[in-house]
Order: sequence, then structure tokens, then C-alpha cells
Amino acid sequence: MKVNDQAWRSIWREGAILHVVDQTVLPHRFVSRTLHNVADVADAIQNMVVRGAPLIGVTGAYGVALAARHDASDATLNAAAATLIATRPTAINLRWAVEQTLAQLLALDVSLRASAAFALADALAEADVDTNAAIGRHGAALLRQRWENLGRPARLNVLTHCNAGWLGCVDWGTALAALYQAHDSGVPVHVWIDETRPRNQGASLTTWELAAHGVPATLIVDNAGGLLMQQGQVDACIVGADRITARGDVCNKVGTYLKALAAQAHQVPFYVAAPVSTIDWQAWDGPREIEIEVRAASEVTHITGRTTEGRVVQVQLAPPGTAAHNPAFDVTPATLVSAIVTEQGAVAATAAGLQPLRPAHQATAAASAI
Amino acid sequence: MKVNDQAWRSIWREGAILHVVDQTVLPHRFVSRTLHNVADVADAIQNMVVRGAPLIGVTGAYGVALAARHDASDATLNAAAATLIATRPTAINLRWAVEQTLAQLLALDVSLRASAAFALADALAEADVDTNAAIGRHGAALLRQRWENLGRPARLNVLTHCNAGWLGCVDWGTALAALYQAHDSGVPVHVWIDETRPRNQGASLTTWELAAHGVPATLIVDNAGGLLMQQGQVDACIVGADRITARGDVCNKVGTYLKALAAQAHQVPFYVAAPVSTIDWQAWDGPREIEIEVRAASEVTHITGRTTEGRVVQVQLAPPGTAAHNPAFDVTPATLVSAIVTEQGAVAATAAGLQPLRPAHQATAAASAI
Repeated sequence: MKVNDQAWRSIWREGAILHVVDQTVLPHRFVSRTLHNVADVADAIQNMVVRGAPLIGVTGAYGVALAARHDASDATLNAAAATLIATRPTAINLRWAVEQTLAQLLALDVSLRASAAFALADALAEADVDTNAAIGRHGAALLRQRWENLGRPARLNVLTHCNAGWLGCVDWGTALAALYQAHDSGVPVHVWIDETRPRNQGASLTTWELAAHGVPATLIVDNAGGLLMQQGQVDACIVGADRITARGDVCNKVGTYLKALAAQAHQVPFYVAAPVSTIDWQAWDGPREIEIEVRAASEVTHITGRTTEGRVVQVQLAPPGTAAHNPAFDVTPATLVSAIVTEQGAVAATAAGLQPLRPAHQATAAASAI
Repeated sequence: MKVNDQAWRSIWREGAILHVVDQTVLPHRFVSRTLHNVADVADAIQNMVVRGAPLIGVTGAYGVALAARHDASDATLNAAAATLIATRPTAINLRWAVEQTLAQLLALDVSLRASAAFALADALAEADVDTNAAIGRHGAALLRQRWENLGRPARLNVLTHCNAGWLGCVDWGTALAALYQAHDSGVPVHVWIDETRPRNQGASLTTWELAAHGVPATLIVDNAGGLLMQQGQVDACIVGADRITARGDVCNKVGTYLKALAAQAHQVPFYVAAPVSTIDWQAWDGPREIEIEVRAASEVTHITGRTTEGRVVQVQLAPPGTAAHNPAFDVTPATLVSAIVTEQGAVAATAAGLQPLRPAHQATAAASAI
């Protein structure tokens, strides 16, 4: 997507050096960081220099590639994959991308791995772009349909949570891809952006992305969405996902579930946009089976912002010694989800709706799980 | 309540000078401010130096008293009352306390008003303390009952939103009064404190209050409550209220409604603690009839915290130019409320449940409204 009229991606490669947009300092600074080895990549994922399920998947694949160029032995590659997967336990794409890249490399003779490694990761990155463009088309069609059904109001108010935009993918985004394409095709989209505590990806990243593309948007606190639905000011919700179970339960950034409950109470469609690789065919009952990552308490007790003098500083919000609990995700039961928008189209959030998306090699697991 | 083993109230008077705890700099500094006239009082309420429905009611009453000591004419008192009521449109206690004090003063001969004014406001402040102590007793009994019903677990997890503590009243608090008294009587209460964006009264005030009294508590972001209920980690919710309609709809700090929806989804009792003066007998359908105060966008785009050097600064969270919408309250429908805890006891959140609390002079309005 464009920033100051120049096309950008969230991750790119120059020879053997990986570049990523540093998402920890946005929106105050727009700078990139270079990643040279597995440790750099693991650190960038862990500390959310890169974040967003699709992007950490692609970054993880590049991490395996960097390992292979250093030492292509089975032992090194397996160790690198384990290190990378452990950085963020909840998002399924990371595991999927790392394991896929690992398997492809291990299938090659050791002598061929170093030269093939980047090509595999590059292919994954390009596939992500195509996937998200397709998600955007299908999601935009749903939003247009909603707009038509409402009688083409002057403004279609869509609420989103966190950042499911191009910063969380290689390009386009998932939920935001739908909003970009709806906007570009003439649907008068206005976006309510949940600030998305504790890391404020909505306030710092989604605001910045949508402004750069010219999509009208208004920032709200996470607490406000229920009132806005009560007041009839939300026509649809659309969010991304970090993991989707085979029956359609959606694990996404913490707080998503509260908005889905409110959407159901007010008959507001609740759409989830995610690539098929987000579906964990081994998982069925999301609230029971998905491990929820718990992050540092300091993400709750402290926050980063810019002072009036332009310095980016961290400030403490709570009294010294305050205990805090910081789960990063929650699970929205499938019954609250109106549709899951994938690169293959929008489907019902049910086992039957998702079944046609299941890759052939997952078929056996499928039969036993349902 | 005690701070460093010394008894404090949120508001007190020394002769003709009013003192209040400055809640805009807590938890970083514990200091008081002096208020000398109506303009000082209106400013303190508007800018949330004092906040919390019961406290702004009492502060408003003192504002009328300060006006009366300066000029006790009908015109001046009526103007002062109008100015004070306009500072915060949603909380009913402010209107109630100001109008009550005004009516009592206007009933006196002008020559008597100046000397009577402080006595009337003092009486209101003392009544608030008694009221909240009684709310605490009734609320603690409900929490104890819940603990007994659950088989006396080692910890009773209670979620609260915003600050309905002594800082929001003259002393004790409403929702927190129940928690203090449950804790003091041996119920092993553990409190999940919603940080309560945008002004973070949970993170800055409730954390500080509960720690000062020794009640175990953990700070969470507003987004986390749904997950915690999903995980069975919330045994009850208890919140305050800014206005309650005659049928039991509860207007409270924005975000309350989302927690009430989640509580219903997980069969978690949702208690509301408030004095009878919070009930607006003229209002019936909360979502339709209650005016929701919209505050400055800067409360969403900026936040105040303490730097590592100990300075309290405001930092910007969103990109420059970001539009923000900042409604301060929402309305929880009566059907989601398990009980309303008043100084006269806990009642059902229904017209029939509330009816016995209706003061005699409201009886006519009652008959026509139901």
C-alpha cells in the first residue's frame, strides 16, 4: 500500500538482508529495521516489531531461510523452526509457515537448501499478497451487499478491532483489505477504529494506515463499541483472526469477543477476514483448545506515546507495584460470526461451511474431528 | 478510608474553603486542591478533578453554598445551580443534589441563606457517607452469598469497571464499599480492575484505593473481561451507576454494557451499587432517554502518565490529525442486571423492584410512567 505516494510492503528482502517496517514506533516514526539471522527474527516477532498473523508467518519463513543460509543441516533447521514457533503460541499462521518452509527444505539435499531457502520464503510472501487481495475482493463484496441492503446510506459505518491491515500482512491486509477495496469501489465506508489496548494497534497502526489511504475513520476506545451499536451507529463489524477452529470459533486480539456479543445483541453482521492458512483443522472447541498467549504485565501498566517535544517515551499509568494480567487473545464462538471471508470466498462459520476449504492432506484429520 | 494509616475523605471543608483530592494527578501524586467559588467548583467537576456520581453531587451542593455566601439572591442561586448542573449532563446525582440544596435555600429568607448554606451541604456530605456505608453492607452480603453458593472457593473473583470507590463518593464508595466490607468480613475477595479507558479511572484510582486498603486486585485492560469470563475466572461483577431509570436500565461509565453482555453469556451475576438518588424516576427507557455526555477527543488520542524520571506528562497515542469520538457512558438494559444494591437493600432491576424505593413526592410521576 502507499505511504506518501510511494508503494510499501511490511517486509522485503535485499539480497541476504531482510527489512521490516518497525511497528513498535509507529505512528510516531516510520522506519525499517534489518534482520540478519534467526535470533533477530525471533526477537522481532516476540517484541512485535512485526505483528499480525499473516506477517509473522512470512517473517518466520524468512527466519528459517536465514538459518538455512548459515547452516542447512537438519538439526539447525529443526532448532530454528522450534525457536521461531515458540515466539508467539497463539497464531496458527506462524506455525503453518515455518513448518511448511522447514518441510520443503528438509526434502531437498543439504547442498541445495541454502540457495533454495530465500526462493521458498519469497514465494510465501508473494502468495500472501495474492491471498489478501482476494480476501479484500470477497470482503468488499459483502460490505457492498450490506450497504445495498441498508438502502445505500450516505455512510456505511464499519467497526474494526486491532490492525488487520497491510502492516499485519505483507500487503493489503485482511479485514482492512475489504475496507480498502470497498472504499476504492465507491462504497462510502466510514471506519470506527477500536484503539485496541494494551498495545493500541488500532490507535497507532490502523489510524495511520487508513489515513494514508484516505479512508474516513474515527478512533474510539475499546469500551465505546457497545454504545455505538446501541445507538445504531454500527452497520457491520469486520476483524482479522489469529486462529480459526474447524467448527468456526475465531481466536483474535483480546476484546474481539466483547464486540461480537454486542453485534449479536444488535443484529449487526460480524465478519471475520482471514486466509485459509489461519484455520487450525486440528482444533474444534476454541475456548477449550486454543492456548491464549499471556504477555508482560508492563504492556498494561505502561504505554508509549509522543511528548509535546516530539520524543517517544514510555510512561507508567498504574501505581508502582500494581499487579496486571495481560492475555493477548480471546475466542469468539462460531455462533456469533456472520461469515468467514477467505481468499476462496466468504463461507459460514460452521464445520460444513469451512469443510470445502480443507486442503486434501488434512482430509483424514477432518473426518475424525467432525 | 485510610491512606498511609490516616483517614481521608475525597472532599472536606475548612471554614469557607472547600478542599478536594485532585483526582487528575492520582496515582502519581496525592494532593488536594482548594475551591473558593462557583467557577472553581464548576471547573473542578468539568475537568474531573472530582468525579464519580455521588461526589459530584456533593461538590455541586457545596458550589451552591459557596454562591449563597457570596450573594444569596434568587437570581444568583438559580444561575449558580444552572452552571453547576450543565458541567456533566449524564449523572443524575449532580442535578439531584444541586436542586435539593437550591430548593432548601430558596425556601429560606434571603438573610438566612448565607449562614445555612454550608450546613445544608455538610448534611448532604454526611448523608452520603451513611448511604455508602449501608450500600457496602448490603453489597457485601450479596458477595458473601455468592461465595457461599460457590462452595467457599479460596478466592472470589469480582470484576469492577471504572472507580466506584471512596474517591467517587465522600467516603466508602458504592461498588467498592461492597468489596471493602466483604474483604473486611473475611470473604477472600480478589478484584479484576478494568483500566477503564479513556480516563483510566480503574488503572489510576481503583488500583490505588484497593491497594491502600489491602484488597487483593489485578489490573486488566477493558478488552480482557470477556476472555476471563470465558475461562471461568469471574465469579461476579459489581459496578456503580451514574443514572438508573425507573425500570432499572443502568447508565454507567462507557464499557459497562459490554461487560454486562459477557456476564449474561456466562451466567455471571452482574450487580449495580448506587444510592437511591441515582434513580431518575422520570426516565424509563434508558437507551432512548438518557443523554450521553460526549467529551473531548483528546482524552482518546492522548494519555497522562509518569516518566521514568518521575515527571507526570501527557503523551500522544494516535497520529496527528486523527479524529476521535469520546462518549463517556453507555446504558446497560435492566434485563442484564442481576440486582441493584442501594442503601435500602438489594432489589431487582425492574420497575416493581425499584418502586418501593420511590420517594413520596415522586409518586405521581410514578403512576404515570409505569
